[in-house]
This record gives sequence, C-alpha cells and structure tokens, in this order.
Amino acid sequence: MEHPENESQYLGLTVNDGVERMPAVNPYFKRKPRRRILSADEYVEGILRGDISILGQAVTLVESSLPSDQAVAQKVIERCLPHSGNAIRIGITGVPGAGKSTFIEALGMDIIKQGHKLAVLAIDPSSERSKGSILGDKTRMQELSGAQNAFIRPSPSAGSLGGVARKTRETIVLCEAAGFDTIFIETVGVGQSETAAHSMVDFFLLLQVTGTGDELQGIKRGIMEMADGIAINKCDGSNVEKARVAKTQFQNALMLFPPHESGWVPQALTCSSVEKNGIPEVWQMIQDYIEFTKNNGYYNHKRTQQAKYWMYETIHEHLLNSFYQNPEIERRLPQYEHLVLNNELSSFIAANQLLDIYFNK
Amino acid sequence: MEHPENESQYLGLTVNDGVERMPAVNPYFKRKPRRRILSADEYVEGILRGDISILGQAVTLVESSLPSDQAVAQKVIERCLPHSGNAIRIGITGVPGAGKSTFIEALGMDIIKQGHKLAVLAIDPSSERSKGSILGDKTRMQELSGAQNAFIRPSPSAGSLGGVARKTRETIVLCEAAGFDTIFIETVGVGQSETAAHSMVDFFLLLQVTGTGDELQGIKRGIMEMADGIAINKCDGSNVEKARVAKTQFQNALMLFPPHESGWVPQALTCSSVEKNGIPEVWQMIQDYIEFTKNNGYYNHKRTQQAKYWMYETIHEHLLNSFYQNPEIERRLPQYEHLVLNNELSSFIAANQLLDIYFNK
Repeated sequence: MEHPENESQYLGLTVNDGVERMPAVNPYFKRKPRRRILSADEYVEGILRGDISILGQAVTLVESSLPSDQAVAQKVIERCLPHSGNAIRIGITGVPGAGKSTFIEALGMDIIKQGHKLAVLAIDPSSERSKGSILGDKTRMQELSGAQNAFIRPSPSAGSLGGVARKTRETIVLCEAAGFDTIFIETVGVGQSETAAHSMVDFFLLLQVTGTGDELQGIKRGIMEMADGIAINKCDGSNVEKARVAKTQFQNALMLFPPHESGWVPQALTCSSVEKNGIPEVWQMIQDYIEFTKNNGYYNHKRTQQAKYWMYETIHEHLLNSFYQNPEIERRLPQYEHLVLNNELSSFIAANQLLDIYFNK
Repeated sequence: MEHPENESQYLGLTVNDGVERMPAVNPYFKRKPRRRILSADEYVEGILRGDISILGQAVTLVESSLPSDQAVAQKVIERCLPHSGNAIRIGITGVPGAGKSTFIEALGMDIIKQGHKLAVLAIDPSSERSKGSILGDKTRMQELSGAQNAFIRPSPSAGSLGGVARKTRETIVLCEAAGFDTIFIETVGVGQSETAAHSMVDFFLLLQVTGTGDELQGIKRGIMEMADGIAINKCDGSNVEKARVAKTQFQNALMLFPPHESGWVPQALTCSSVEKNGIPEVWQMIQDYIEFTKNNGYYNHKRTQQAKYWMYETIHEHLLNSFYQNPEIERRLPQYEHLVLNNELSSFIAANQLLDIYFNK
C-alpha cells in the first residue's frame, strides 16, 4: 500500500511539535501507523487538548481518499465544529517571487512571540509534494517550522480545486478546535485558488513587489479587487524608493475601485520581510480590519455567507462531476464541442441534446 | 391567452422599420397575429432578406416559453447559424446615470450614417417592460428608434439570467443573419449581467462618469478589470476638467492591472454624448481593438471560447435547476441551510446529505 509511506512523509513534513520528528524512513510507520488504531473519540479528544501530533494525523485522515478514513474524518469534523470558528483567518497571495515564504515567516514569528498560535495552510491544486510546490518543502520556512505554537501544512495535493478547498476548509475546523487562533491560507496568485481562499478567510492580503508591470504578469485579473490590503514587499536596499512609489500608485488605484461590501477601505503598505520593516504595520492593518468589521457586523455576516457558499459550491461540483463522468457524455462530448466550434450547432442546442442523453440514461 | 397582447406590445416597442408601426391596441393582433402562420422556412427567408418585421417576430419566438414556439425557434436559429458571426459585438455597461441611452444614441446614429446596420439588445434579468427598465421604453432612444438600419430590442424579461442570456445570444444570431454588422449589448452594471454580456461580445466598454467615488457605488467589483476600454461620459460644461482628471486616474489604474489575455492595453477616453464630443474617438478605439485582435488571432480565439462557454454554461444551469427544483430538495434545503449557519453541520456534510437525497430519488 502507498498509504503508510504517505503517512510518514506527511508527518515528516508537517508536524511542528518541536519535540520529536519522525524521519521519512522511520521503520515504525513501515509496520503499522499508530493513527490507524485511533477512534474518532480519540482524535477529537487529542485535538481538543491541543495535541499537535494527533491534529496532524487527523488532517491526514481528512486528506485521505479512502472511504473508511473519510467516514472517521467526517465524525471528527462534526464533533470539532462546535469548537471551531474562533481563529482569525487570513488569506495571503502573491506570485512566485513576491516573497511569500519569508513574509509568512517574518509575520508568523512576530505574532507567535505575541502569544498567538498559528496554523499555516495552503491551497495549490497543482501541487505535488515531490515537486517542491508551495509549502511542500519545510525548508522554506525554517524558523517557523521549528517554532512552538506553529503548525505548517502543505496544500493537499489531490486533484480538483473543489477537493483541495474542501480539505483545507475542514483542516481549518480541526486547527481551530485544537486552539490555533490565527490561520494563514497561502495561494500562488495564478489561478482559481484565490477565489477559493477568498471564500474561506476573513482578510485577504495581496503581496506585491515593485516594478514596471512585468511583476504583475502572473497575477490573475480580479485578484486586486478581492484584496482587503496590499503589502508591497521587498521594500529594502535600493528598492525602497520604487516600493514607495508603487505604494502610492496602488493606493490611488484602490480608491478607484467600488467600495468593499464591508465598508472597509483597502490599504497599501510597504514592508521588508528581510529587514523586518513594516511587518507590524501589516499586522495592525489586519487587526484594524477585524475590529472594524466586527463592530459593523460584517465579520459574522461574511462567515455566514461563506458557510452557505461552501455548501452550495460542493453541491454544484458533485452535480457537474456526475454529468461529466457519465460514460455516454464522455464519449459524445467531443463531437458536440466540434459541431459548436464549427458553427454547425448552436451552443444551446448542443447543450440540450447532451442533457437529454444524460437524463434519459 | 396573453401571448397576442405581448406580441403587439413587442412590435410596438421594437420594430424600427421606419415604415409602419403598429399601435399596441391595433385590433389586427387581437384577432390573430400574422407570425402564427409563418413556417420556419418563411422566418429564415424573411430574416436572410433583411426583413426587420419578420426578424422582430422571430425574436419574439425565441423569447417565447411555449414549447411549440421553441421548436420552431430552434429550427430557425439552426438555419441562421451559418449566416451569423459577421457582426462586431460590443458590450456597453454603466450604472444608471452614466448616460448609457444618450451615449448609445449618439454613437449609434454616427455609425448608421457611416453605412452600418446596428442592432441594440440588452441583458437585464430584473427587467419588466412595464416598469421602464433599460431599453424597455423606446422613448429613451428616440432618434435611433426611428432610424433606418437600427433594430432596438429590450431585454427579454423572463426569469433567470441564464434564460435571458440564452435568448440574447440567439437574438444575436438572428440579427447577424439579417445583415446587421454591429451589435450593442447593453447592461446596467450592477449585477451578474456583465459577466454574461462579457461572454458574448468582442469588445467590452465601461461607461463612467466623474466624481469622488459616489458614482462608483453601483458598479460591481471586477467590472473595471473586464473592460477593454473606459469612456468617461458627460465631459461637458463645468464637468470637463473633472472628466479629464478622471481620465488620467483611470488610465493610471488600468496600467496597474495585469495585461489582458488579448495583449490589448485598455484605454480611458472622455466623451460627451450631449455635445457629441469624443464619440468618434471611442468608435476608433473599438475599431483599433478589432483590428489588433484580428491580426494577432485573439478575435477568433475568443469567439471560439465563447461558443464553448455557452454550451457548458447551459449544461450547468440545467443540472442545477434539476437539483433545486427537485421537490424533496426544495422541502429539505432550508433545514440544512439552518444547520450549516448554526455551525451544527459542516458545509460539506450538509452538501453530501442533500446530494444523497437527490441521487437516490
């Protein structure tokens, strides 16, 4: 089975309990992973008393595609739900090169020193741990991954964005039940992952770097309007002046956008993760946002909308999968697409004929 | 039946043949509408020879929800398809107060004088003709609605955005087959209609007005990034200076956005629909865009993507309708939503239980 190997890999990568770390080749797991014998009750108890090792194993269970694992995972999540919801959830996005890891490490260490418990998760459906995707390599955040009160977890690597998003959202529940009061969700800023992340966080931070526009190439359209704040990173050395100009430009651009539903006016700040400048100001901006939206009721409103969003989103994803995985649809879809592309059949007639095939089966 | 009344209302509102206009109370239609006795062949022949009266009746057929009408409509569309695709399709959006009607009238009259044939359609799912929604009142574009070579049609009023979008897209096919070489699709800039319009046009124009931000209140987030061009309208009288400042601001903001997939750099222009200033420049910008994207292959690429988009979009809409209209789902959905909102059930577990109900029935 590949499961035990994965298990040991997971643990090696992600459990930051600061006490013991299992090497990937630990023969213990070759025999029988300990988590196999835990019951839902034991997971829940372990999580609620803040046992990071058991939390890590529970997340692995959530990420597993084995039906038997899923059955236990769902029980654990259901029982953790009443204990969740108390963390501040922050989305952090930026293209590769924007300095996300160093930024997360700098901000993360800051707030841990203030007494916070921080979980860092990621959404990157393209990720495969072996390929060094975001957060796949714990050497990226060396200080943080060795810290007490930090729990770092790479993106679940399995398949669809919907699947990855579900697992991340369920992992948030477990982390919150385990007492983590701050959750970072990292994405790479190049795809649909940002919409998913945006739909599960309280504050969405866009990390930018200065430049003439080339640096923006990778950022997907629409992400800037999602941001509750922009941090222009790498404001250090010879870059300081450029970063300050960029800050003004972004600040002006943000003013042209329609106001956020929250009433919040997004801000642009500069910071340097290397020189550790401006990091507390970014954290203060997030705190200001949380206070502002808690006071005007938007904070809870958004949480409620998000819970509904994910219920409906999951339903929709399953309905579409059921359609596209229908063998007759799989066989005939390419012909219909061909006819539509050649203007031989209207998009709507093609759709209706395919729907007839699906529903009459 | 309410159908004949609707028919006469449609004709009274929308057929701009410049020759004869049926008053809404014309007793002719009270007896038996002529279009009733047309065959699919007759519709197609009429459309292909550019008979605007028959085009108007065919659009009414497309908009009808009677299965017998739909059967004929689909035949007509299928036979018109090979004759469609030759018009330039332009989306025009802006909040109420941005001056869309006067702008469309000014630009429309300009290009008709240049020898173009112009169809003006609208997407506004909230519209009801009786309530004076966009384009529901032909007095809004008096000059254009009396002009030869103009065909103005209000938004189909029926229900869902998907339904309205389908009808508009099918109406484009009929208009193009009837020889119209320019199509405007108007939307109100406050909802999802813009995404629908954006997915069926070649060029997407955002009409703005100057101001400190209040005017932006109504524009939905994300629309600015969709725009291929921004026209700052009402650049006249005491407004000229403000409009020019706004132009610079928008131009700067557009530079901060990630580049369009087309390679096109969106522009911001000023214009006055009342003083007829800057209107030819807006038209020139659109022409430049068309030439630019035809040369680099993006124009056809986008059309192809749009045809696919609408096929899949239609499939998805039907799949979701089938789910939400299931009586057992309708009955139990509110309970599940309640549990999710109270954190008693995770979004994903609720979704899965509802899906079980749907698929096991």
